[in-house]
Amino acid sequence: MTDHPTPLDAALAAADAGIDAGLARLMELVAIPSISAEPKRAGDVRRAAEWLAADLASMGFDASVRTTERHPMVVGHDTTAPEGAPHVLFYGHYDVQPADPLELWTSDPFTPALVPQPDGETWITGRGASDDKGALMTFIEACRAWKTATGALPCRVTVLLEGEEEITSPSLGPFLAETAEELRADTVLVCDTDMWDRDTPAITTMMRGLASEEFTITTADRDMHAGIFGGAARNALQLMADVLASLRAPDGSVAIDGFYDDVRELPPEVSASWTALPFDAEAFLGGVGLSIPAGEADRSVLEQVWARPTFEVHGVWGGYLGEGFKSVIPAEAHAKVSFRLVPDQDPERVRESFRDHVRARIPADCSVRFTRLGAAAPAAMPTDSPMLQQALAGLREEWGKAAIAGTGGSIPILAEFRDRLGMDALLVGFARFDNRVHSPNEKYDLSSYVHGTRSWVRILDKFAQG
Amino acid sequence: MTDHPTPLDAALAAADAGIDAGLARLMELVAIPSISAEPKRAGDVRRAAEWLAADLASMGFDASVRTTERHPMVVGHDTTAPEGAPHVLFYGHYDVQPADPLELWTSDPFTPALVPQPDGETWITGRGASDDKGALMTFIEACRAWKTATGALPCRVTVLLEGEEEITSPSLGPFLAETAEELRADTVLVCDTDMWDRDTPAITTMMRGLASEEFTITTADRDMHAGIFGGAARNALQLMADVLASLRAPDGSVAIDGFYDDVRELPPEVSASWTALPFDAEAFLGGVGLSIPAGEADRSVLEQVWARPTFEVHGVWGGYLGEGFKSVIPAEAHAKVSFRLVPDQDPERVRESFRDHVRARIPADCSVRFTRLGAAAPAAMPTDSPMLQQALAGLREEWGKAAIAGTGGSIPILAEFRDRLGMDALLVGFARFDNRVHSPNEKYDLSSYVHGTRSWVRILDKFAQG
Repeated sequence: MTDHPTPLDAALAAADAGIDAGLARLMELVAIPSISAEPKRAGDVRRAAEWLAADLASMGFDASVRTTERHPMVVGHDTTAPEGAPHVLFYGHYDVQPADPLELWTSDPFTPALVPQPDGETWITGRGASDDKGALMTFIEACRAWKTATGALPCRVTVLLEGEEEITSPSLGPFLAETAEELRADTVLVCDTDMWDRDTPAITTMMRGLASEEFTITTADRDMHAGIFGGAARNALQLMADVLASLRAPDGSVAIDGFYDDVRELPPEVSASWTALPFDAEAFLGGVGLSIPAGEADRSVLEQVWARPTFEVHGVWGGYLGEGFKSVIPAEAHAKVSFRLVPDQDPERVRESFRDHVRARIPADCSVRFTRLGAAAPAAMPTDSPMLQQALAGLREEWGKAAIAGTGGSIPILAEFRDRLGMDALLVGFARFDNRVHSPNEKYDLSSYVHGTRSWVRILDKFAQG
Repeated sequence: MTDHPTPLDAALAAADAGIDAGLARLMELVAIPSISAEPKRAGDVRRAAEWLAADLASMGFDASVRTTERHPMVVGHDTTAPEGAPHVLFYGHYDVQPADPLELWTSDPFTPALVPQPDGETWITGRGASDDKGALMTFIEACRAWKTATGALPCRVTVLLEGEEEITSPSLGPFLAETAEELRADTVLVCDTDMWDRDTPAITTMMRGLASEEFTITTADRDMHAGIFGGAARNALQLMADVLASLRAPDGSVAIDGFYDDVRELPPEVSASWTALPFDAEAFLGGVGLSIPAGEADRSVLEQVWARPTFEVHGVWGGYLGEGFKSVIPAEAHAKVSFRLVPDQDPERVRESFRDHVRARIPADCSVRFTRLGAAAPAAMPTDSPMLQQALAGLREEWGKAAIAGTGGSIPILAEFRDRLGMDALLVGFARFDNRVHSPNEKYDLSSYVHGTRSWVRILDKFAQG
């Protein structure tokens, strides 16, 4: 022991001292309804970007809001680190999912609150409290703690905050291409993933890709009366149901020809490490009121959500949706769907197979039209890089343990960073899997926030130490 | 030829002279948005009832609006006929279907208009112009013509107008039970069916029944993020699609165990008369932009829509319906469906088989709840009654020809008249099958209206002559 605290000790102390002020800032940010999918919220999205740029500037970053074709980027640079220190690019997103169905929220999604729980935890509630505003602020608060304690950061830090992550990042690729020289660093840090369990933070090295699509089936040229045409006229909703049912086999697999051709089996060492994880499939499904896994019958639940591709229906609508009964044979039916993909599936190849599969099931007198919603390549990161090991060490010092994990989610930006900047990402996550991300009553645990911030303080120190 | 016109001639002349005034009355009635399915329109439904009672009273009927638990009945009596004249009960309905989707109407559904057509026909446009306001007014205007010409009706006439036909007539049974003595007549006349073709009116003797249902499938206790749960968690919309697809076999038949057990095959003489009808299946489907019959592969299109039961999906909704993409696994999915039934299927027995079929496909950790929307028994009328033959004769004198037909529609009230009053109905129809009943841009042909009115003038005379 020493009487002189190290810079790390001072930064950790500053992080602890700054919790209340940091929470107040986070709640200001969550209160901005920056829903990227809703055009009427474009002004709010920009407001969130401006708020973040101002916050970064207030702690000495050279920060600015950069306009794109849709929602802006926020870029901030800090060069107070010693010459030769590692350079990290931190990525987060400040846009959020739509909040509907609003009636299922127990409090307003954009009026965040601190809500004490019976188990002693405190929830930070609100849309985006976890995904990704709460998570990204852990990094920003860690930077603030270093600056407060030492006047400088131990690493050179560039921050990039996106406003289109929830709409599959259409502007990110072009933006990275334009700013490659400005943004390229030794690694890109991403804070948008889950903890392994409530006591164990995780570095995620494998994540699924995505191909999402909207499509409309049209049968007749108008809605029809079932009393006149019922039995002879093609019902667009029945056809839609037939098509959606045909996409999934009774054993839970995706029933498109050749869909599994490019699927890479899990490497034995990853498979072994996952098997060693104390994963409770019953508790995982039980957390949302389910007990029977819906995926491929011959795969474990962890494989189903981390290592296997899947087909999901996100929305279906058509026909009469009002009160009571209307005897209509609908002529149009709509669906939003997506595929989660694993290495080495190609999103656009899957999309074409899907469209072929659907087209083959549309009778000659009916039609279908497709709209591409988005895509993300699946990714598997190498697990032996020095910076990954340094980050793991930092996490272990803060939490006592840390896991290397997979995720069923898609992080569309990873392919962009790899392709445009030649960088693999390091995904460090403090979110609990029960945070109701994308669902009503999203929350972030205060412990995720506090130890997440302290973890970044330590990880920046580890990087600087080398 | 005689210099002294008969009372029939005088009544026909009065009908012709009254066309413009009658059309003005019909358009007043169509302008009232009496949508029985929409609670907010209850006042409009009552307004239509009051309008009709006043109109009947103005021509000497003892008419009144009778309150029920939901929408009122209109009852009118005329006793100006000679002692011993036949007594007919005329039934019509003044409620209409919802008008949505409004954006597909080329003019406001409740601002009726007379629209000349290139072929010389004139359309009376508006929701309810055909079903059933235009049709019921043909009978009322025929009564007015008789009264104008002779000061009396040739038959004793009771009029019963309902405001709940489009919501499967929940109050009609109880009302008929209460008023059986007041309403019982020699026959009940119904004007809510189609012509055989544009030149041939029809008496419909066979009509399908109905069992309609709404149901909700619930999987998890909340919507989930597909990135976290995708592949392992049951998707309510996928399950809904699987269930809806399972209800219909690839050959177009309904795939519920025992569904066809009670289906009566068409009597050979009816089958023969239908085969003789000049029915153009290609034109029938072509009228709505289709060419491939969707029903049972081994049945003709006419059988598919008149003599065979069918399952239809009227509305499906669930998940994210907003703009863009939301990666949600929906925990709830909703559908409105119905079965069209034929003799001797029982609606409630079919409903139970349907519910059993669905329940058997819901995994043990998920649930389904059903809401009964409505029911109507199928019906087949005897074709040899004297009054049916008299009505046919009246139609032939007006149009030169007339057909005995079936219909795929359900007229829920028929079972009520049979069960409560012991009367079979005589269904005389002047609507063309392309009237877009229940669809946007509903219309009624001026020729249907004019010759319909004249037909009733003649039919009342035939009944009186015996």
